[in-house]
Amino acid sequence: MNEIKIFCPATIANLNCGFDVLGLCIDNIGDEMIFRKSPQKGIKITKITGADIPYETDKNVAGVAALAIIENLDLEYGFEIEIHKKIKAGSGIGSSAASAAGAVYGINELLGKPYTKKELVQFAMKGEAVASGSEHADNVAPCMLGGFTLVRGYNPLDIIQIESPSELYAVVLHPQIEIKTSDARAVLKPMIPLQSAITQWGNVGGLIAGLYTKDYELIGRSLRDVIVEPLRKGLIPNFDNVKNAALNTGALGAGISGAGPSIFALCKGETIARNVANAMQNAYLETKIPFDIHISKVNPQGVKTI
Amino acid sequence: MNEIKIFCPATIANLNCGFDVLGLCIDNIGDEMIFRKSPQKGIKITKITGADIPYETDKNVAGVAALAIIENLDLEYGFEIEIHKKIKAGSGIGSSAASAAGAVYGINELLGKPYTKKELVQFAMKGEAVASGSEHADNVAPCMLGGFTLVRGYNPLDIIQIESPSELYAVVLHPQIEIKTSDARAVLKPMIPLQSAITQWGNVGGLIAGLYTKDYELIGRSLRDVIVEPLRKGLIPNFDNVKNAALNTGALGAGISGAGPSIFALCKGETIARNVANAMQNAYLETKIPFDIHISKVNPQGVKTI
Repeated sequence: MNEIKIFCPATIANLNCGFDVLGLCIDNIGDEMIFRKSPQKGIKITKITGADIPYETDKNVAGVAALAIIENLDLEYGFEIEIHKKIKAGSGIGSSAASAAGAVYGINELLGKPYTKKELVQFAMKGEAVASGSEHADNVAPCMLGGFTLVRGYNPLDIIQIESPSELYAVVLHPQIEIKTSDARAVLKPMIPLQSAITQWGNVGGLIAGLYTKDYELIGRSLRDVIVEPLRKGLIPNFDNVKNAALNTGALGAGISGAGPSIFALCKGETIARNVANAMQNAYLETKIPFDIHISKVNPQGVKTI
Repeated sequence: MNEIKIFCPATIANLNCGFDVLGLCIDNIGDEMIFRKSPQKGIKITKITGADIPYETDKNVAGVAALAIIENLDLEYGFEIEIHKKIKAGSGIGSSAASAAGAVYGINELLGKPYTKKELVQFAMKGEAVASGSEHADNVAPCMLGGFTLVRGYNPLDIIQIESPSELYAVVLHPQIEIKTSDARAVLKPMIPLQSAITQWGNVGGLIAGLYTKDYELIGRSLRDVIVEPLRKGLIPNFDNVKNAALNTGALGAGISGAGPSIFALCKGETIARNVANAMQNAYLETKIPFDIHISKVNPQGVKTI
């Protein structure tokens, strides 16, 4: 195989209670990338559409991730990459993770799959670090593996794929404003009350249990965030109204996707998801801020060849 | 039915990562209680063995729990309770929870089971508060329901029963020293680093996932406590040596049971559990402090009629 085209899905990190550890892969929205073997060694980015990002390999998320996977290989050839961004940078639904996961997946396929998808995550994290300043896997892992993922820890990297019930849908409303990752990080407090942490890890336990037992009510009760959402929601115009609109229309839970500004809701079934999307949309119209809205089943597969 | 005899098992709360939310029911060690309907209204404690605790109903954990369940009932009769304590007070394996859960279970049986076991937890918490100063369910819930339980939250009380794999054994070493709950609470810090909390809830997620998927390795990797154990272990002589002895002999994980001083280990299979118990015992002998040691399968049933 000398050429491959892939789909790199968007992801929702944190999922309220699971700040920095939980993530979810969605469908319907994602980047496309094309990879070609090339006689010229190394990684060359030959085309970018949909985003104003650098062509220099060592400044580009996909480029750095691609370099990481071939770094220790003695190859007689190299790779060309085309990046067709559909996920906007800074949207909070894993734009850089899609580029990073896509890059290592694509190269790995053309190399003849020396690595499992799980093993690829560590390389993708190198690319993710270009965008976020630190190597983290809460978007990269679900983008790569699909479904719900838990990053249990980093020393060593320990990623757990969590089963999820089949009728789970996500709605994502993406307001077209930029929240800098540095701003989203700056509002966090380095110390938190033990009592809040206990509430949060009770909910993490409840969410994981709800996913395994297909208990939608429990999933909903557990989708709470008493630590980060109260600090970050002020960065997102009309957040409370949109969240309440989602909950009042039957969403199991709703919150900030990643570092925002996207707002997500999880729902049981497509009909409720459509109603919830309408309600969230109506609640956002009054801000006059342009937005996208997406409805998606949980994507069980993650990044894939198309 | 006018008389009933029951077994009220010991429990391990917290389980390292799940401070204040997780608990586990064990077997082989527990109190016995006898309940009789009596023409005299109210609750009367008629016999206590194995502990120096008050006979006055409103000062006794079992008494207060029993009063809570009959409080709103218009009964023409009352109950006599015999309490035969085998679980030492202040051992860290749910002595007061056994009395509280046992009391409400026994009364409920003689009343004709108006409440489910899950509903009984709220009454038992009233008794638990007599011993600990606050209504909490992290021992009461597993004592009542058996197996692993998660107290997701208290407003309203939300208890989740977590499936667990069949080969899981617990070892508990109980040093015969007293740690006052107030001392165990006093070493805790009201504020904790966000990074530690993230580590902890990653482990809670991993532990719950490991239990559902019967992944013993994952259970072991998740049995970590970066928040409470470092603060409390100084109250327990030789804690690190005992814990390391358990881990080096094949325990999946080990830590402080409840508020201590008991030290627990979880193991896959009885053979490993016996080896671990020997190693923990040997590591404790040098302290010259007397101790009990218990090996038990996870008890899936909780409090029961015998």
